[in-house]
Amino acid sequence: MKRADIYSKCFLGKGIIRGEHVVTSEVIPQPGSGGELPQSGEFIPFPVARRVNSFQSVAMDDDVEGGSLGPYQERPRTFPNMRTKPYTPLIFRLLMRINSRVLLVLLILGLGVLFYIGAITSPIIVFVYAVCIVSFFVSIYLTKWVLSKDEGPPEMVQISEAIRDGAEGFFRTQYGTISKMAVLLGLVILIIYLLRSTSPQQESSGLGRAATAYITVASFLLGAICSGIAGYVGMWVSVRANVRVSSAARRSAREALQIAVRAGGFSALVVVGMAVLGIAILYSTFYVWLGVDSTGSMKITDLPLLLVGYGFGASFVALFAQLGGGIYTKAADVGADLVGKVEQGIPEDDPRNPAVIADLVGDNVGDCAARGADLFESIAAEIISAMILGGTMAQRCKIEDPSGFILFPLVVHSFDLVISSVGIFSIRNTRGSGAIGVLEDPMAILQNGYSVTILLAVVTFGLSTRWMLYTEQAPSAWLNFALCGLVGIITAYLFVCITKYYTDYKHEPVRTLALASSTGHGTNIIAGVSLGLESTALPVLVISVSIVSAYWLGQTSGLVDESGSPTGGLFGTAVATMGMLSTAAYVLTMDMFGPIADNAGGIVEMSQQPESVRQITDVLDAVGNTTKATTKGFAIGSAALASFLLFSAYMDEVGSFAHVKFHQVDIAIPEVFIGGLLGSMLIFLFSAWACAAVGRSAQEVVNEVRRQFIERPGIMVRTDYKEKPDYGRCVSIVASASLREMIKPGVLAIISPIVVGIVFRVLGYYTGQPLLGAKVVASMLMFATVSGILMALFLNTAGGAWDNAKKYIETGALGGKGSECHKAAVTGDTVGDPFKDTAGPSLHVLIKMLATITLVMAPVFL
Amino acid sequence: MKRADIYSKCFLGKGIIRGEHVVTSEVIPQPGSGGELPQSGEFIPFPVARRVNSFQSVAMDDDVEGGSLGPYQERPRTFPNMRTKPYTPLIFRLLMRINSRVLLVLLILGLGVLFYIGAITSPIIVFVYAVCIVSFFVSIYLTKWVLSKDEGPPEMVQISEAIRDGAEGFFRTQYGTISKMAVLLGLVILIIYLLRSTSPQQESSGLGRAATAYITVASFLLGAICSGIAGYVGMWVSVRANVRVSSAARRSAREALQIAVRAGGFSALVVVGMAVLGIAILYSTFYVWLGVDSTGSMKITDLPLLLVGYGFGASFVALFAQLGGGIYTKAADVGADLVGKVEQGIPEDDPRNPAVIADLVGDNVGDCAARGADLFESIAAEIISAMILGGTMAQRCKIEDPSGFILFPLVVHSFDLVISSVGIFSIRNTRGSGAIGVLEDPMAILQNGYSVTILLAVVTFGLSTRWMLYTEQAPSAWLNFALCGLVGIITAYLFVCITKYYTDYKHEPVRTLALASSTGHGTNIIAGVSLGLESTALPVLVISVSIVSAYWLGQTSGLVDESGSPTGGLFGTAVATMGMLSTAAYVLTMDMFGPIADNAGGIVEMSQQPESVRQITDVLDAVGNTTKATTKGFAIGSAALASFLLFSAYMDEVGSFAHVKFHQVDIAIPEVFIGGLLGSMLIFLFSAWACAAVGRSAQEVVNEVRRQFIERPGIMVRTDYKEKPDYGRCVSIVASASLREMIKPGVLAIISPIVVGIVFRVLGYYTGQPLLGAKVVASMLMFATVSGILMALFLNTAGGAWDNAKKYIETGALGGKGSECHKAAVTGDTVGDPFKDTAGPSLHVLIKMLATITLVMAPVFL
Repeated sequence: MKRADIYSKCFLGKGIIRGEHVVTSEVIPQPGSGGELPQSGEFIPFPVARRVNSFQSVAMDDDVEGGSLGPYQERPRTFPNMRTKPYTPLIFRLLMRINSRVLLVLLILGLGVLFYIGAITSPIIVFVYAVCIVSFFVSIYLTKWVLSKDEGPPEMVQISEAIRDGAEGFFRTQYGTISKMAVLLGLVILIIYLLRSTSPQQESSGLGRAATAYITVASFLLGAICSGIAGYVGMWVSVRANVRVSSAARRSAREALQIAVRAGGFSALVVVGMAVLGIAILYSTFYVWLGVDSTGSMKITDLPLLLVGYGFGASFVALFAQLGGGIYTKAADVGADLVGKVEQGIPEDDPRNPAVIADLVGDNVGDCAARGADLFESIAAEIISAMILGGTMAQRCKIEDPSGFILFPLVVHSFDLVISSVGIFSIRNTRGSGAIGVLEDPMAILQNGYSVTILLAVVTFGLSTRWMLYTEQAPSAWLNFALCGLVGIITAYLFVCITKYYTDYKHEPVRTLALASSTGHGTNIIAGVSLGLESTALPVLVISVSIVSAYWLGQTSGLVDESGSPTGGLFGTAVATMGMLSTAAYVLTMDMFGPIADNAGGIVEMSQQPESVRQITDVLDAVGNTTKATTKGFAIGSAALASFLLFSAYMDEVGSFAHVKFHQVDIAIPEVFIGGLLGSMLIFLFSAWACAAVGRSAQEVVNEVRRQFIERPGIMVRTDYKEKPDYGRCVSIVASASLREMIKPGVLAIISPIVVGIVFRVLGYYTGQPLLGAKVVASMLMFATVSGILMALFLNTAGGAWDNAKKYIETGALGGKGSECHKAAVTGDTVGDPFKDTAGPSLHVLIKMLATITLVMAPVFL
Repeated sequence: MKRADIYSKCFLGKGIIRGEHVVTSEVIPQPGSGGELPQSGEFIPFPVARRVNSFQSVAMDDDVEGGSLGPYQERPRTFPNMRTKPYTPLIFRLLMRINSRVLLVLLILGLGVLFYIGAITSPIIVFVYAVCIVSFFVSIYLTKWVLSKDEGPPEMVQISEAIRDGAEGFFRTQYGTISKMAVLLGLVILIIYLLRSTSPQQESSGLGRAATAYITVASFLLGAICSGIAGYVGMWVSVRANVRVSSAARRSAREALQIAVRAGGFSALVVVGMAVLGIAILYSTFYVWLGVDSTGSMKITDLPLLLVGYGFGASFVALFAQLGGGIYTKAADVGADLVGKVEQGIPEDDPRNPAVIADLVGDNVGDCAARGADLFESIAAEIISAMILGGTMAQRCKIEDPSGFILFPLVVHSFDLVISSVGIFSIRNTRGSGAIGVLEDPMAILQNGYSVTILLAVVTFGLSTRWMLYTEQAPSAWLNFALCGLVGIITAYLFVCITKYYTDYKHEPVRTLALASSTGHGTNIIAGVSLGLESTALPVLVISVSIVSAYWLGQTSGLVDESGSPTGGLFGTAVATMGMLSTAAYVLTMDMFGPIADNAGGIVEMSQQPESVRQITDVLDAVGNTTKATTKGFAIGSAALASFLLFSAYMDEVGSFAHVKFHQVDIAIPEVFIGGLLGSMLIFLFSAWACAAVGRSAQEVVNEVRRQFIERPGIMVRTDYKEKPDYGRCVSIVASASLREMIKPGVLAIISPIVVGIVFRVLGYYTGQPLLGAKVVASMLMFATVSGILMALFLNTAGGAWDNAKKYIETGALGGKGSECHKAAVTGDTVGDPFKDTAGPSLHVLIKMLATITLVMAPVFL
């Protein structure tokens, strides 16, 4: 009976009702009247209901016998997409079946083989392996530390379990769909590669068609699997950390902050480490297997091109993860806000709102899982493109040992793991016993950690360039490249600053936006759209300056090709990209921090904790919003640079397959111009479909929530918690809607470049224009990249600014909560939700996915 | 006293108050109580007040003596920007001073000189002159016909006069500012051209630096003046036709339609005729003056390049006209709607709304004047670019008499004048005596006229190609070009259809949008944004197919250059553009119809006409909305094609000045890629500033309207019209705000390409990359064009769809007027207003302005 009581206290608000009755003495509870407790079983959301089943009958027997369950009894309260088929991905089932000792032996054996192969390949690979494995141990320490924290009172645990069940259920179904598509696409790639012509390099290396095909498909699938794991890890830790943060918030703000940071740090280290390790394993395996650099076989400088499939697999999974997760989280959020906040005027995360559990689940599957996959893919794409460019340059400059140039990105990210760990551990619980409410500005604490990481990054980056990029042909080249890295680090920093300026309510843009809300919904939206569009200007200027300066630092590095002309330019840009991403793990930590804090706040609100606890989680949540916004700036900046690199790699690849020089894309040719038009249009259409998906799903949620409020008027009566909302139905609606809606934009993104390439290849054949398909695809890629960067900047910033304008008004400005001004600001926030958390981040992934897909599919366009 | 009575009846609603008093017998008027009539003088909006002045004292003496004028007496009720300085443009003052007989003699003399010069140049020019002059006479007939109609009852006249005063006052001030900027820019161009290097052609023709400079500046100023006149004519007729349409609506729907169409037709003929005539005059003058084609002087194929200044002048004025007018009309509209419709729930154009006169003025200065300047500039830019390309091709193919290829666009647009006149006159008052309310679908009538025009266009286009483009070198080339023209005509038709599909509430997209309104403001905005973004896809596909097919029709026309390779491709695209614009005058007529009908509706509403009259104007207004939306599709399609042509002309121009072949822009070069990034960014920033300008100005209006409602609560009491709003203050606020706000985006658009060109020219100089500035500007232009097309499509369609979703709900769907759903739809409409009437149309102009500015400024980038 004890647990049943907990349930009713937590989900039925009985405890509170009784408490209020005592105080107000207005409404007298009528126990056993047949209306109250029978419904308790009825209205428990499914994830809880499933657990409750065993003792539900006890609860019912205890209080009433056979009361009417009302008209809702017939409605399904299960997650039809998740629970009816208890689906577990194959990889987990296999791992779970194996005995743990056998697993350990296998692991050690595997490590041995790994190091053996690495040692054959290069000492640098051994270093990378070592760092990655150490950082995995660090991450295991972090997760153990987080899991050792208490989960708080049972009512928190229950909510957390509901969230966890919803998130894991959706994750499994979503990744089930994704994996089927991935296998299908893998088959398509296999067929294409088996039919493709081979490049001269491959012919000279004796690498046959079939071998290339299997290598590419294997890399693709490995990339997809790793990306999936990255997403899973992000979600796994966040659904466990959220409740621990809520619980810690009851004791100490600093402890809550520390748990959220360490949980984020765990998944950040795993994500970055896996990206690096995956590529290192592939590289060294291919090196040993293909006997690279021995006579008659492949040259080491061509090796990185074989890894492209890995990047494509990663971006393929990331695209669907981001789309599905993004639609999920925002459909739930918008739906909950529109009825809850705007129509009914109840606060965020109020337990009376039927969509609140779906909203909290969304934070995990949208922000944590998807962002993990996104950054994993960013890093993988950037490493591979930089390796390709490094290899090309080393070959042109006839550098004796090109492995330094090729493996440089792996070393940079190994150091990233080290310095980010230092940054994470620098956030310590020094004032552990600080009383509730006594909290320094958490933003300042995170910023301090970031400063530590950035300073270390400057040092380690300099060391890495000296170690890896020193060559006798151009003794000072490494210094130029170190400066390129510095350019990248500064670019990242400026991006973070600009995003903050436009999205933080301490600054003028968001205040102007808040002011515009005071004249109504319409002016709020107009002002937000203008703010978002305007915010594209400064980042573009920054990225322009950084591309040009990095290019010219590279060009003047002293590295020259056979004919004596400088060749280091593109590699300089690549190094700048690495500089930008050299603190990726720490940035990802800050990003993951956001949804965990957000979830903790939701649990605190739902479990009706005292005001002081909510204050702590509110502060953490607000900081999380800022870090999330700045991470997006960081992600889009690196996407821009990475795409530019992948574009260059694409040009190389096409040139090498077509047996001609292919180093220009002339937009004065009508077809090429049209390719650009189509590329930009793809971005608009993709954004349209992503936003529309959220809008449609949110409408379903709104209708469901309204229906519940109308059919069960008791939900809204605060002094009479007789009726509880049916959370499960909202979760189930959102889950099935987002799985359905993610397909259309995702497939569009994958199909379009292939179709355009083939159509113009055919057209070129009939009009006598060689390579037309490849050129048009190149132009499509470039225009899509440019439009994608701008559109993503617009969507992210507008969304972030609307969110914070609302928060600013909620601090009491311009009438505060509940005023007409606040309602207009909430409208802006709901519009911004799909912008900043669905379409915007999906565009980051899309840009890089386009670059990798064109690279992998290049043979089709020729 | 009679007129004073009219004023009080019209603007003070006294007649209505008394009428209602009789009916309700609830509120007894207290004449002479000191509260009523003294305020009559007080609350008359300024434009009226100025006229009233002479007898205002009579009115005051008559009813009360020295009553308190209330706290508003001190507030300025004048148009500070317009009335304090009675400014008339110099050109009007000069013309007005001359005696009419002298003027006639001068006119005849001028015509004689014109025809003499034309006859020397080419018989084709004489034909063009003749058609233009005839069509001017037709347009004079049209305006006389319109002006001969009665202006209706005095209350209508008064409102119409207030609108006319507001519109003309704003026009004068706005064009005063624009002309100052134009003179300044003219000076800058003069200096640049005096310092520039000369091209080989110029050197061979003996055309010195100074002559080129004066020619360019003179063309620029002539283009600017003509564009100004085009805008003025559009507004002049609309402020006179609106009241006549209202008046006719009391008698016959068909007559009202006919007046609106003929008024629109008048300005359409003047606009198109002036564009054609201006270029023909410049062309023949230069021909005779420079002794073209005689030995040692300029070749005829180089002549069109001298006309570029004309296009730039036209687009310069059009840009500011569109920005200023667009901001004016939408600031007033949004402001009026947000308080009137959303907050107070009063209908559109309700006389109680203080911003209603400003809103009606806005229709004229925004839609009529600005669209006139916009289409004028479209046609001018398209004619000039086609002439340049025709000349280049004729020269390459060594065609004996190239004048056919060069003058072809002038002939096409001469036929345009003829066939559009036929189309306009095909809308006849056959059922002139039809009773009120008996009205066939006006859209069908307009569509019939359009079908007539399109059929004639196909015929005359075929004839023109046979006449002008027949050459013995390729006897069947004219047929290919005729097919290109057909491609253009079909493209225009498809654009109109697509726009209609996405913006008409008969179709699914707008219905889905309306449905999204039922779940709140937020989902309405999300759905509208997605709809707009999605609507870019089909037009892009259409334009892609038409560019490729026109290019290949041209390429296979049989025209070959010296080396035997086909050269007609680009000219084929040019011919398709002409085909698209071959019904421009009729399309412009349909466009002008919209704001005239809108205004007529406003006058009917404000003058409290019976419901049956309102129904007629409502129907006309709704049709006007659709035609306005479709014209925008037409305008953006032609802008896309014209820009592509101007881009090619720019490449030719740069090549000719740099003495090298310049026919490719390689986006794989980092700087060129950055140029593209900056070009796209320019579009985003420009749109941001245009929307923000409307938002800010609208906020001022909202605050003013709210202030009036709060300080004069009597305004809203329907049974007690004691207090009247102060319309003049709103007019004055909107006017000064829009003049202030148009500067920033306009200057941005003009400065950016110049700055980028110079910066990269310098960078190229230091990094040893020749022509870098020109290349970067080319890439900037192309990316800006692509992004601009997409952004304009997005903004126009989203705006139109929101507008019509609201209208759909107002027909009674989903709860009808006053429901929550309707409020959400009104929010969407207000957001769409700056999209579709400020930022969107300004982007059309911006795209072409960028193309002409880069062409004129090309010497700076080298």
